[in-house]
Amino acid sequence: MNSITKAPANITVGPLPGSRKVYVEGPMGVPVPFREVALEPSSGEPPIRLYDTSGPYTDPSFVHAIDKGLPALREPWIMARGDTESYVGRQVKPEDNGNASGDYLAPTFPVTRQPRRAKAGGNVTQMHYARKGIITPEMEFVAIRENLLRQQAREHVDRLRARDGVPHDAVIPDDITADWVRQEVACGRAIIPANINHLELEPMAIGRNFLVKINANIGNSAVTSGIAEEVEKLVWSIRWGGDTVMDLSTGRNIHNIREWILRNSPVPIGTVPVYQALEKVGGIAEDLTWDIFRDTLIEQCEQGVDYFTIHAGVRLPYIPMTVDRVTGIVSRGGSIMAKWCLAHHKENFLYTHFADICEIMKAYDVSFSLGDGLRPGAGADANDRAQFAELETLGELTKVAWDQDVQVMIEGPGHVPMHKVQANMIKQREHCGDAPFYTLGPLVTDIAPGYDHITSGIGAAMIGWFGTAMLCYVTPKEHLGLPDREDVRVGVVTYKIAAHAADLAKGHPAARLRDDALSRARFEFRWMDQFNLSLDPEKAQEFHDATLPKEAHKTAHFCSMCGPKFCSMKITQDIRNEFGGDAQKGDAQKGMSDMSEKFREQGSEIYRPSAAE
Amino acid sequence: MNSITKAPANITVGPLPGSRKVYVEGPMGVPVPFREVALEPSSGEPPIRLYDTSGPYTDPSFVHAIDKGLPALREPWIMARGDTESYVGRQVKPEDNGNASGDYLAPTFPVTRQPRRAKAGGNVTQMHYARKGIITPEMEFVAIRENLLRQQAREHVDRLRARDGVPHDAVIPDDITADWVRQEVACGRAIIPANINHLELEPMAIGRNFLVKINANIGNSAVTSGIAEEVEKLVWSIRWGGDTVMDLSTGRNIHNIREWILRNSPVPIGTVPVYQALEKVGGIAEDLTWDIFRDTLIEQCEQGVDYFTIHAGVRLPYIPMTVDRVTGIVSRGGSIMAKWCLAHHKENFLYTHFADICEIMKAYDVSFSLGDGLRPGAGADANDRAQFAELETLGELTKVAWDQDVQVMIEGPGHVPMHKVQANMIKQREHCGDAPFYTLGPLVTDIAPGYDHITSGIGAAMIGWFGTAMLCYVTPKEHLGLPDREDVRVGVVTYKIAAHAADLAKGHPAARLRDDALSRARFEFRWMDQFNLSLDPEKAQEFHDATLPKEAHKTAHFCSMCGPKFCSMKITQDIRNEFGGDAQKGDAQKGMSDMSEKFREQGSEIYRPSAAE
Repeated sequence: MNSITKAPANITVGPLPGSRKVYVEGPMGVPVPFREVALEPSSGEPPIRLYDTSGPYTDPSFVHAIDKGLPALREPWIMARGDTESYVGRQVKPEDNGNASGDYLAPTFPVTRQPRRAKAGGNVTQMHYARKGIITPEMEFVAIRENLLRQQAREHVDRLRARDGVPHDAVIPDDITADWVRQEVACGRAIIPANINHLELEPMAIGRNFLVKINANIGNSAVTSGIAEEVEKLVWSIRWGGDTVMDLSTGRNIHNIREWILRNSPVPIGTVPVYQALEKVGGIAEDLTWDIFRDTLIEQCEQGVDYFTIHAGVRLPYIPMTVDRVTGIVSRGGSIMAKWCLAHHKENFLYTHFADICEIMKAYDVSFSLGDGLRPGAGADANDRAQFAELETLGELTKVAWDQDVQVMIEGPGHVPMHKVQANMIKQREHCGDAPFYTLGPLVTDIAPGYDHITSGIGAAMIGWFGTAMLCYVTPKEHLGLPDREDVRVGVVTYKIAAHAADLAKGHPAARLRDDALSRARFEFRWMDQFNLSLDPEKAQEFHDATLPKEAHKTAHFCSMCGPKFCSMKITQDIRNEFGGDAQKGDAQKGMSDMSEKFREQGSEIYRPSAAE
Repeated sequence: MNSITKAPANITVGPLPGSRKVYVEGPMGVPVPFREVALEPSSGEPPIRLYDTSGPYTDPSFVHAIDKGLPALREPWIMARGDTESYVGRQVKPEDNGNASGDYLAPTFPVTRQPRRAKAGGNVTQMHYARKGIITPEMEFVAIRENLLRQQAREHVDRLRARDGVPHDAVIPDDITADWVRQEVACGRAIIPANINHLELEPMAIGRNFLVKINANIGNSAVTSGIAEEVEKLVWSIRWGGDTVMDLSTGRNIHNIREWILRNSPVPIGTVPVYQALEKVGGIAEDLTWDIFRDTLIEQCEQGVDYFTIHAGVRLPYIPMTVDRVTGIVSRGGSIMAKWCLAHHKENFLYTHFADICEIMKAYDVSFSLGDGLRPGAGADANDRAQFAELETLGELTKVAWDQDVQVMIEGPGHVPMHKVQANMIKQREHCGDAPFYTLGPLVTDIAPGYDHITSGIGAAMIGWFGTAMLCYVTPKEHLGLPDREDVRVGVVTYKIAAHAADLAKGHPAARLRDDALSRARFEFRWMDQFNLSLDPEKAQEFHDATLPKEAHKTAHFCSMCGPKFCSMKITQDIRNEFGGDAQKGDAQKGMSDMSEKFREQGSEIYRPSAAE
């Protein structure tokens, strides 16, 4: 395959319908981006600013060139800290790209930059700074990003009711400051995945007391690949709301394509390093060694990967616990390590070398995503001994990482029926302290291949409410094939629904702002506002126009489903107008109360003589 | 519009992929239908029989003619009871069809049949029989239909684990008998919607202790209509698993189109009679009268409608409680009655005439679906005074209906954030005793028009688990437009997911059978079995083939997502083969335990000297 010719011509740029990019002055003059949705003047409402993951791509004033990448936003912050050094990085080897050559070798990213690392013996993790009481620009950026919504909610306060929700173990303040973010990172309850070599990053936080985040997976495979194709998948994912993106590439050109992705990514990029390591040994799990793995970690640390999924909890003694399972081990990384363990009759080298891995990660500030290699792949296997034994080990490893101030989140399942979902959150807290939980779904039933974004969206919304900090999306193609662009969009929007539903249920102080604004628009037949405030404005308008295409209908005071005579909202408004509308709500209230008063005097037996009519 | 020319040529018939229709001898020789999925011989597993809502349409030996309708399955049962009489029915009037004429008048159904009703003073409801200790063929049919799955589960018992679930207030027996069904109906905890004039019906039950059911809405509107079009929507809905169908038609030809639907429907048909009544008074709510409504009830009872949504709980004194709402009254029927009440300054005539309505319904055995006319249309309005005041009244009316042995279910919301979902189920039980709950969603957020099958599927799965007996589907077009055939399919499958997830979580004894069988197929790379056992076999295979079209890949021992080297399930199987596969599980267990034993002796410190590798 030739990655270049296979690539689509363009990367998607430009704002979403009805939205414009706005910036709020941030740390060291760095602007913090938001997406502002203007409402129709008839609404008498101010514009609504939304959390914006889409990066510069949705700013018309930004001219994107895929071979130049994004601005090095964080460079001044990192230089100012003065605790890192640039050095001659590791040489890229043919095996880093699966020995692809000639037409088959994806080109290297044209702009080269020397990697940086902590000065000898240093530690440059956000957790390290936080524990030393240092508020970083990254923390300030996050604070502004998450708090503006709250300030806005207060401006809308007249329209908002009291805070309302069941937060479970979350403690969500009315206002957050950079120092509060620092405290959350210091105690390990939140992470800010931010490799010092990922200068293009717009920092974000993952933690129970922040907005629930979602991850989208991309990546080329043995079957298909392409630079612009992968970058477009990234841009497309964040356009719809992806907070982080994992590059799960296998096959050739892993190194080069990842470089193009990182240089063009404003969101944290995660990887599963063992995938590349396995490619380097020709796919033979038994041939993996610590040295090859270690070399792969350095390679990816230097490129700027922000978090690594590492399956260090798949311990030798746990593997027999999977023998009776319906679907055994379904994690790729988990099965690779299990095979290695059994072939060598040795403990997992990721476990035995865990402290060595921490040493590497703290020099670049790469966060752990401790992989759940023994997660259930079927409802029948949910919450079994193998799964929870591994979870206990992940808790043990969390403390090891925290001893070196390395940031950690914990991966969770998988396939779990509804009645077993909450136990996963409870046990994760029990064993892993406050380390953020990051789950894949879970899927609440196994019988709907082709609709697993939905089977998993149900479990994701529930576990998000219970306290999961980030939800890894599942697309409709799960179990069946490789997602295309449309699958990615559906997966991301489905997970934005789950994450937002969780924020609402937890009682996040600003979450309702958007729901209420959209519902008011719906009630007042402000169709364009309804479209523009929705998670997928294009889809919403497309569906509306399928039934009522005419422009006139965008202002029609009825829904196409019912037609004018049957539109409940129109009738309700008629009622309010006839019997005292919003304008004279007081009168309406009184008028109606008088009536019901009169009614009560007449007594309220169940039957009246039909003559009463 | 000319309904005939607009109609599609064909009604969808024929079995689903990999399935065949089988029948189990039922009451009075009437066969109870199931869908049997045969598995690949390599599985060594018996075929799996699934609950089948699709009616004769999926039986290749049945030749369907839309103008003849379905066989009169229940005729001998009803005649045998000898408590009904046929009579000259009400004359069809021009206004029954919105005064459509000429080309615009949909043709009448060619086969005419005199309606039947209870002999003077009689009562022919399933509840009436149940309370007299009579087991009807309808109850027997339901018992076989719901119990066969359990018998099957027992045959698979070696593969099944112990029952597992959190049933909340459900009491789900290991086995059910016709007499148990009778008891559930007698106490009002379940209903069997079965109008004596709907002879084509394959009886089903709606109740907390039965499988969770789903309803699909169809119906023509002012904008579009067509006989074959509506019948095809019905057939399409039940093909994917719709348990009941509501005809929400408005506009012209309501009477004639409903006749074609009923004569071709093996599932209960529900309606909202006030829609047709409103058409009869030209859409002017104030002009509605008890006489017009009563006449409409008789009209629909004679045709065989199985349940009526009646908004008798929208009482005059509750209407002022909606004035402060974000979206006021969003139920069509609710807003119509509210407008009538205010216009006349009188109590809702459906409330004052409720006992009269019961008198009519018990003569045909039409079940109540007590409408929640004041349900919330936005998360902000969820669980408010208006909603719960109406719910209390529905509880009061339930007792009135039960006094006359009329079957009742209660409609519920709507738009409800996750943390307020369970309160709806609890209050419904508190006020309405054990009458089955029938909810629309609920939607857990308002910000995703275009994806409201998902926002509502999340709430539906949860409330189904908590005890809701039937879930009314929502399609992707909700709030935006009229669902097309594909929307109906997506809506139904989404709700089958929600209902099945609820059955799993409640611990239904047979629910896991299908999940486990599909998961085993997945693990053993029996692709066709995986497709055929899924809720939408065509979609599953279509998605698979999009990536790996070749026939060979249907037997490929890897997933297209990962390719052979990265397929965790393949690796797990290699492990089992190398270290003792399923065949010698004992050995495997032992072999692996020995290893982990050895490992423990070595001690399990977190770090080992790297030399250990």
